[in-house]
Amino acid sequence: MEQHSILDALQWRYAVKKFDSSRKIPAKEWALLEESLRLSPSSYGLQPWKFIRVKTPEVLQQLRAESWNQSQVTDCSDYVVFTTRTEMLESDVDEFLKLQSGIRGTPMEKLQGYRDVILGDIVKGPRSAQAANWAQRQSYIAMGFIMETAALIGVDTCPMEGLDPKAYDRILGLESTGYRTVAAVALGYRHAEDRYAGEKKVRYPISRIMETR
Amino acid sequence: MEQHSILDALQWRYAVKKFDSSRKIPAKEWALLEESLRLSPSSYGLQPWKFIRVKTPEVLQQLRAESWNQSQVTDCSDYVVFTTRTEMLESDVDEFLKLQSGIRGTPMEKLQGYRDVILGDIVKGPRSAQAANWAQRQSYIAMGFIMETAALIGVDTCPMEGLDPKAYDRILGLESTGYRTVAAVALGYRHAEDRYAGEKKVRYPISRIMETR
Repeated sequence: MEQHSILDALQWRYAVKKFDSSRKIPAKEWALLEESLRLSPSSYGLQPWKFIRVKTPEVLQQLRAESWNQSQVTDCSDYVVFTTRTEMLESDVDEFLKLQSGIRGTPMEKLQGYRDVILGDIVKGPRSAQAANWAQRQSYIAMGFIMETAALIGVDTCPMEGLDPKAYDRILGLESTGYRTVAAVALGYRHAEDRYAGEKKVRYPISRIMETR
Repeated sequence: MEQHSILDALQWRYAVKKFDSSRKIPAKEWALLEESLRLSPSSYGLQPWKFIRVKTPEVLQQLRAESWNQSQVTDCSDYVVFTTRTEMLESDVDEFLKLQSGIRGTPMEKLQGYRDVILGDIVKGPRSAQAANWAQRQSYIAMGFIMETAALIGVDTCPMEGLDPKAYDRILGLESTGYRTVAAVALGYRHAEDRYAGEKKVRYPISRIMETR
């Protein structure tokens, strides 16, 4: 792939403030965006996430009210709420290992060692108390993937962290699911009048954020 | 950009287990990878991260010993340690706003409202106690960006979470810097004998990870 066009895409991307609500993401583009989430890597491959694509206008209105009333929620083409596991259970690991066994044809017995490593870490080990934060971090890799893919195909995005996760959980009925809202991504097309589109990017120089040792 | 080739790249990517230590990432490719980190979005644009590219063999050996002795640390072309702020201070916000003022020519006075919002949230507000986790999450967006860009230009990666962050902090001398290790990414080229390269991806079907409401 052309290095030039990747750089162009990354520079073209910005956090959209005002979406053009008349433009919708076509099915073919959406399929690739969805697949970018699905193909994202995660620690141990566990995929501790569920993405909720909200299309119902009434629900979007409710979510907007819990997002500092930001217009992106209702004006974008597709609003995707990122939710992640609050803890990792043995059953999560077993579901994943069954999937792996099915896809790769590895007998479950051969996955016991891997199972023990995961259980001894994020399920029952020292990191298990931090499993919710761990899962949230993983989902931000997926956030990076969907936003970069979007930029590459000319779809705009806005990552949304300015929202009330508890209110989202209530509206989306997540309380008893073992998943909780961490953030959202609005996807669609920038409005011609979004003045933020023309603003220069504010980034530290590479010398400030990268050290070589 | 061709949708087909993006999908190919995402499917081509996998977590490399064995790098070809004889192959190094050329300067031009590295510049784009570095730029992908730099152009990553973060909450409020604060960029609460520092990336450490470790090239010294002795240091890499020490880090490998604290990473379950995984060979990726020493055999990859470029090993990038992700470090993030442990807390967000007023000075972090002011440094960022000065940068913004300089780049966009906005007088600092006009950024006071934005400053207050940030201070009332991640610096002094309810989320300030979670600032370290917040900063770590942001850095995983950058992790997504560098891994997707790498895949698009045929550079392999392995995200590394199986490491002792405290030991990394000690080796890299981070204790008094306000930054702490969260993870790392090894970049380079897969070894012809890495059998993991041929394994099928283990991913839940989209119906399991995506709901539409």
